[in-house]
Amino acid sequence: MDPELYFEDLTPGRVFDLGTTVVDRDEMLAFARRFDPQPFHVDDEAGKASIFGALAASGWFTASLWMRAYADGVLARATSLGSPGGEEIAWPAPVFAGDELRASMEVVEARRSRSRPSLGLVKLRALLHRGNEVVYRSTFTGMFGTRG
Amino acid sequence: MDPELYFEDLTPGRVFDLGTTVVDRDEMLAFARRFDPQPFHVDDEAGKASIFGALAASGWFTASLWMRAYADGVLARATSLGSPGGEEIAWPAPVFAGDELRASMEVVEARRSRSRPSLGLVKLRALLHRGNEVVYRSTFTGMFGTRG
Repeated sequence: MDPELYFEDLTPGRVFDLGTTVVDRDEMLAFARRFDPQPFHVDDEAGKASIFGALAASGWFTASLWMRAYADGVLARATSLGSPGGEEIAWPAPVFAGDELRASMEVVEARRSRSRPSLGLVKLRALLHRGNEVVYRSTFTGMFGTRG
Repeated sequence: MDPELYFEDLTPGRVFDLGTTVVDRDEMLAFARRFDPQPFHVDDEAGKASIFGALAASGWFTASLWMRAYADGVLARATSLGSPGGEEIAWPAPVFAGDELRASMEVVEARRSRSRPSLGLVKLRALLHRGNEVVYRSTFTGMFGTRG
């Protein structure tokens, strides 16, 4: 499939709705057991006793759910060349099993690389909302191929 | 098990060696297929043709490997209360199947919460090295319970 989204299409202010995802309890637990086995991520009672008030998702699981929505909604039809990293990652509220989360991405800045003009650097804001509440936010740079 | 590491023990400059982990190809691929199915993360040929030169790990898998090392090496014996987020996440070099990565954590800053004196906010630097090369770096805030 030819890409539809090149660097030139990722203009500041453009917002992409990346759809919704429901947090699957079994997957959330499996992820935490493997990568982030803190008690409040793997045990219901410890979750209840924690600052979160219930078993809460690992922030890395939440970030990974956003990534999948972004891969499906944008990258699958874009000239993505990966990401060197970002300047913000935030989990302003805990995520729980069964939550329905809406993913979005907004283009914040875009500039062509001086050293490699076939490549553009795009600063993106990633968001996951539960209703009106932001549960995940990050700001990072994506690299995209330019047209022609 | 009683915790050994309280807020007061996480003093600026203190470095924790979190041991090594070897990147398992099957797990790296399974993670990418589920969370980050960009061609260069799921297909050898696409990896070779990419900016990375070979099938490369999703950055979120790399971050998750660091998280596990941190959970085992520090959090399992600490008064961790989770993390609100961070100010930097970077993947300065691609990670490949079979890589042996050394994880470490350094305390950058520490301050007691004014509004909640039983809680301390600790700015941490996360690193994964392959030999002398940094392949993952992040700076984030951890919340820890204080003594007494």
